[in-house]
Amino acid sequence: MADSGKRVREILSWYGSDNPGTLNNLARLLNHGRLGGTGKLVILPVDQGFEHGPARSFAPNPPAYDPRYHFELAIDAGCNAYAAPLGFLEAGAAEFAGRIPTILKLNNSDSLYSGSDPCPAITGSVRDALRLGCAAIGFTIYPASSARNEMYAQIRELAEEAKAHGLAVVVWSYPRGSGISKQGETAIDVCAYAAQIAAQLGAHLIKVKPPTAHIEQDAARKVYEKQQIPVGTLAERVRHVVQSAFGGRRIVIFSGGEAKDKEGVIAEIRGIAEGGGFGSIIGRNSFQRRKSEAIELLHDVMDIYANA
Amino acid sequence: MADSGKRVREILSWYGSDNPGTLNNLARLLNHGRLGGTGKLVILPVDQGFEHGPARSFAPNPPAYDPRYHFELAIDAGCNAYAAPLGFLEAGAAEFAGRIPTILKLNNSDSLYSGSDPCPAITGSVRDALRLGCAAIGFTIYPASSARNEMYAQIRELAEEAKAHGLAVVVWSYPRGSGISKQGETAIDVCAYAAQIAAQLGAHLIKVKPPTAHIEQDAARKVYEKQQIPVGTLAERVRHVVQSAFGGRRIVIFSGGEAKDKEGVIAEIRGIAEGGGFGSIIGRNSFQRRKSEAIELLHDVMDIYANA
Amino acid sequence: MADSGKRVREILSWYGSDNPGTLNNLARLLNHGRLGGTGKLVILPVDQGFEHGPARSFAPNPPAYDPRYHFELAIDAGCNAYAAPLGFLEAGAAEFAGRIPTILKLNNSDSLYSGSDPCPAITGSVRDALRLGCAAIGFTIYPASSARNEMYAQIRELAEEAKAHGLAVVVWSYPRGSGISKQGETAIDVCAYAAQIAAQLGAHLIKVKPPTAHIEQDAARKVYEKQQIPVGTLAERVRHVVQSAFGGRRIVIFSGGEAKDKEGVIAEIRGIAEGGGFGSIIGRNSFQRRKSEAIELLHDVMDIYANA
Amino acid sequence: MADSGKRVREILSWYGSDNPGTLNNLARLLNHGRLGGTGKLVILPVDQGFEHGPARSFAPNPPAYDPRYHFELAIDAGCNAYAAPLGFLEAGAAEFAGRIPTILKLNNSDSLYSGSDPCPAITGSVRDALRLGCAAIGFTIYPASSARNEMYAQIRELAEEAKAHGLAVVVWSYPRGSGISKQGETAIDVCAYAAQIAAQLGAHLIKVKPPTAHIEQDAARKVYEKQQIPVGTLAERVRHVVQSAFGGRRIVIFSGGEAKDKEGVIAEIRGIAEGGGFGSIIGRNSFQRRKSEAIELLHDVMDIYANA
Amino acid sequence: MADSGKRVREILSWYGSDNPGTLNNLARLLNHGRLGGTGKLVILPVDQGFEHGPARSFAPNPPAYDPRYHFELAIDAGCNAYAAPLGFLEAGAAEFAGRIPTILKLNNSDSLYSGSDPCPAITGSVRDALRLGCAAIGFTIYPASSARNEMYAQIRELAEEAKAHGLAVVVWSYPRGSGISKQGETAIDVCAYAAQIAAQLGAHLIKVKPPTAHIEQDAARKVYEKQQIPVGTLAERVRHVVQSAFGGRRIVIFSGGEAKDKEGVIAEIRGIAEGGGFGSIIGRNSFQRRKSEAIELLHDVMDIYANA
Repeated sequence: MADSGKRVREILSWYGSDNPGTLNNLARLLNHGRLGGTGKLVILPVDQGFEHGPARSFAPNPPAYDPRYHFELAIDAGCNAYAAPLGFLEAGAAEFAGRIPTILKLNNSDSLYSGSDPCPAITGSVRDALRLGCAAIGFTIYPASSARNEMYAQIRELAEEAKAHGLAVVVWSYPRGSGISKQGETAIDVCAYAAQIAAQLGAHLIKVKPPTAHIEQDAARKVYEKQQIPVGTLAERVRHVVQSAFGGRRIVIFSGGEAKDKEGVIAEIRGIAEGGGFGSIIGRNSFQRRKSEAIELLHDVMDIYANA
Repeated sequence: MADSGKRVREILSWYGSDNPGTLNNLARLLNHGRLGGTGKLVILPVDQGFEHGPARSFAPNPPAYDPRYHFELAIDAGCNAYAAPLGFLEAGAAEFAGRIPTILKLNNSDSLYSGSDPCPAITGSVRDALRLGCAAIGFTIYPASSARNEMYAQIRELAEEAKAHGLAVVVWSYPRGSGISKQGETAIDVCAYAAQIAAQLGAHLIKVKPPTAHIEQDAARKVYEKQQIPVGTLAERVRHVVQSAFGGRRIVIFSGGEAKDKEGVIAEIRGIAEGGGFGSIIGRNSFQRRKSEAIELLHDVMDIYANA
Repeated sequence: MADSGKRVREILSWYGSDNPGTLNNLARLLNHGRLGGTGKLVILPVDQGFEHGPARSFAPNPPAYDPRYHFELAIDAGCNAYAAPLGFLEAGAAEFAGRIPTILKLNNSDSLYSGSDPCPAITGSVRDALRLGCAAIGFTIYPASSARNEMYAQIRELAEEAKAHGLAVVVWSYPRGSGISKQGETAIDVCAYAAQIAAQLGAHLIKVKPPTAHIEQDAARKVYEKQQIPVGTLAERVRHVVQSAFGGRRIVIFSGGEAKDKEGVIAEIRGIAEGGGFGSIIGRNSFQRRKSEAIELLHDVMDIYANA
Repeated sequence: MADSGKRVREILSWYGSDNPGTLNNLARLLNHGRLGGTGKLVILPVDQGFEHGPARSFAPNPPAYDPRYHFELAIDAGCNAYAAPLGFLEAGAAEFAGRIPTILKLNNSDSLYSGSDPCPAITGSVRDALRLGCAAIGFTIYPASSARNEMYAQIRELAEEAKAHGLAVVVWSYPRGSGISKQGETAIDVCAYAAQIAAQLGAHLIKVKPPTAHIEQDAARKVYEKQQIPVGTLAERVRHVVQSAFGGRRIVIFSGGEAKDKEGVIAEIRGIAEGGGFGSIIGRNSFQRRKSEAIELLHDVMDIYANA
Repeated sequence: MADSGKRVREILSWYGSDNPGTLNNLARLLNHGRLGGTGKLVILPVDQGFEHGPARSFAPNPPAYDPRYHFELAIDAGCNAYAAPLGFLEAGAAEFAGRIPTILKLNNSDSLYSGSDPCPAITGSVRDALRLGCAAIGFTIYPASSARNEMYAQIRELAEEAKAHGLAVVVWSYPRGSGISKQGETAIDVCAYAAQIAAQLGAHLIKVKPPTAHIEQDAARKVYEKQQIPVGTLAERVRHVVQSAFGGRRIVIFSGGEAKDKEGVIAEIRGIAEGGGFGSIIGRNSFQRRKSEAIELLHDVMDIYANA
């Protein structure tokens, strides 16, 4: 990887409006771990304890109840970063200081109550991220929810504050709510739109779900058909999503979704990598496996990206 | 254009309550580009990626996925200014610094969710506009929406802050919502009212839609009939809208609306120019054409205004 | 008018809790124009452009589209003050600086949308009033609206800020909404109550509508009948409303309402003056007439008050 | 009253968390007037102009329209304090400075609109109370209203600010709203609960209504019956309410309610005094009488408390 | 207890992100009283006066109406801390300063009004806690309420402020509301989830209810069955809840619930202690007994924990 410094510098050049503090933290994310310098990222996110409850998240691999486990997993696997809510980061930030870039998730939902139009609670602040030594803040938006404007206004304010303090901004953009169908949540037009919205809101790094070939909105379908945008394979769809995020000039990575077998994970990663995706965020498929298996899987995933 | 400085000074004289910083930025908008000094403006706005999604906006002309494309188009065509949401401006503000005045749109709507009474999300701040070197903030209000008061209160606060920091204020005034019919959105009484509201809210530059001859409100119809206000031609209607914005002492420009053929665009511009409109804001009709065609069209439009 | 200074000093003595800055601005309002020093006031308000739209407001007298027209009308007619929303004042404040006291209306409603319980939008600030050189802020409350508490809280906060900065506070108190009937909006018990509420909220100058003999509320009717409060003539009703505003120790003036013929206006003014009203606020009945006619009418009105 | 200083010192000892400024203002309330030093209080409150309208409040005794009247009545009768909304206090605070402690009511309701779940408007601030030289702020809460939490949050914030600035805090605790029946508003369990809530919210002085023997809530009835709490006489009920406010270590006074004949008032006061109530707040029963009669009545009331 | 310092240091080591001020206050809680140094806690909470009303709370043991009673009870029984709302703490904080760590409850609900989805009112502040010399703030969240996000946002902000000022954060996590059934409020999956949420929100000390063997959510049931998580005995369930709070690295204590006989209390405590619970918070079961009985009971409880 003789040109690794070059690729990172190229990516950083897309963020000309950011101050050196933010560029430095973006570089920390890009230069850390086994994929450091390649321009690709594999991130470990662990917010399922909050989102789905502890037993559903950690009982399949009980050591994962302990917040230190995830720091260790991310470090040992050579991930680029570890992302989690306030409590999980507080419980390890001092012990693992300096060993892996961290991303503080600033909003979260639990599943003890759920309405049709989701809106997460604010659960952390930029000041929390700073005192915990994080490289970035993370935030989930649900486009298609009737509460979307509230979320956009929140991330706008948090992103402005984060950037002013030299942090990077990571946005999970997951369309969901009464504006679209269940199937539409992963429709290609919707995923591409979700990436565009996150980019327009000022995200440095965008996480979306791997898109399906379904097209949700009639107005969009006409264009996809007329312009013959290829969306038949996952690689084609990923390529379209990446293009939809400022013509490829924003870092777009893909979530892993529900736990599945290793072959399923690997096949999906190949498609993402082939389509020019910048990487993956892999939660349940890593921490719900035994640690050695998880590291093996993560290494396999990283190798695919490294060779893409 | 021997009297160009004179016309700009005349226009600036209408804004006697503004500080030199704001007057300077108004002058930047009026003096830049091919129409610089004429008192007319053609502005390139690109918020369709946020408003309609990336494929619907950019697939017809794929280079437009890249945010740099629009800076270049506005510069190459000699527009007075380029207006866009936060992400698009951040992605080019440093690279194109000093080459064209920019307007940061501070609120935006997406179309993954839509209710009957629109209210955009706040997506940027005055501080963002200042750090990105913008000449003005932009803001959309939807009179006739049940949420109008919220928007008016937002622009009031943002405009006060912008003016105090020497920025100009551009208001898109697009009546829409349960207070009026679909047809009423472009009714002559409604468009004139929309211009008045924006002016009363303190806008320096007002954007409305080209009005039709339809009259929406009964109370207004009585006056239009009694006073025999001429609204038969587009030029007459534009003249009435301009008059409705403080007797012509506020800059009123007109949006282009849906993509259409070149003849359609040109015909509409002629009407606007004949009626004393101060210019146009042309989005889809420019960036969805190939660049050379778009520049040709924009030049044709500018020529009409230059010779009006 | 040998005792004019005396009367103004007497009125100012009612406002013992106010600082010299506010007393000075109250004195400016009382000492300016043809009625200066009499303790009576005639004020020109022009917010109809915002409230009813430009054509309905200004087409009957097209020079009135221009915001300078109203400054000139108020100055030429010798009004005590000119009141308008932000845009209209910004468009003339510098040019007419020092020639007439101005009142910045800080909230306004438009009629493109209307619900059953009105609540105006905040459209200006105390800082705006200060930078525009105003003598007072103006604010409309709609008692009887379900949103009344929101308005009361807003004027409370704005009035505190205005008083701390040496401005006077003018409250339009117009009961309207689902708490009362249409007829009740001008009922004598309701108008008197409206004056009391404005006074308790800390207004220096209160505007109400000329009351009718209708009594709206049952609990009030019992008292009016038992105490035999005379409400048969307009003068009696005005006297009761003035008494209801702290026993006559708050300045209460009356709005003119819809445009009507000159005789209608004059007859109403005679009743108000006879009843001890402090003056009138006359909008549509002045600026919708030709200027010379309007000045003649306003002078006739002022003469009635001067001789009351 | 040889031990008057002692009793006041004893009462002040209950407020060990307050700063000397607040203790000083509590002492001002306790040491002023004919009951000064006895530990008992009779306060004149006049917010009926706002709450019920001017005619219903003042027409029975027209001098009471003038805000100065109430200052004079409270002073001449030797009340401990005078409580009123912003406008009424502003209209006399300078003229009567130093002659009687005043309490600024910071929230008020009018009766031009009324819903099932009351929530007053905020109509004054701690800064207003300070600039007007008040000894305390007053605030009404309506437990049992669906809007109760909003009121509790408001008084929490205002009380913190008031205490930090050396003011005392007086809370009117009047359960009302969809959580209870009309009869329940004065039920003994509800009044006792209302006193407890006000005390827990940090009130120094609590006003409740004289309770009836009705018990509203089933869960409470079981306890009253099991513990055989005596609530048969007014004195017993008052004793229970006083006990419910921190075992008698908070000042609890009782409102007079609707206007009634003198015997009715006196009988009620005897019950309150016998039960250990700290005093009364008497509005309509004082200012709706002729002044001499009102003073006579107030003196009779004070004598009962003085001899209790 | 030769190793007491060691155990406390071990527990403090779990809170590596906290500043010395907060660690010092956590140590105060852990080192005070009969269980000081054991790592176990028994806390006296008295918010029932606010939550259920005074008679239901204190009539069974009338000395408890006096706020000083509870300070004395907590001190005499050797509790680790005393927790109460603002009024109760204000009424004794000075007199009992330095004798027992206190926890200010910052939100509370009363039962004069109750909707299906609870949300307590904010009734105190971090500044109140500081001026009253408290060691910690306390806050109740109701996961499963539609208002949960509001509560999470409140505690997020209060916890950030508390930690910055060196206070500890105690969260009562009581799922309740339309998201779950009545039975579900104490279901094992729900209690474990409640502990996880509080921990993720940054609580240092978490209070939950003793869980039953019921499983509320289908998605959770599958996991409990598949992973064969033992939940048959109270000890097993407590062990699971403690594990669910960061693998045992957060202090989790259990509430006592409704008043019951001594045997019932003791049996429950044995289960909690056997399951590794960190202690109990015992309100009604202590202050509704005669003081000597309450102290005897509390000592028995403490002995169980001391010997666990």
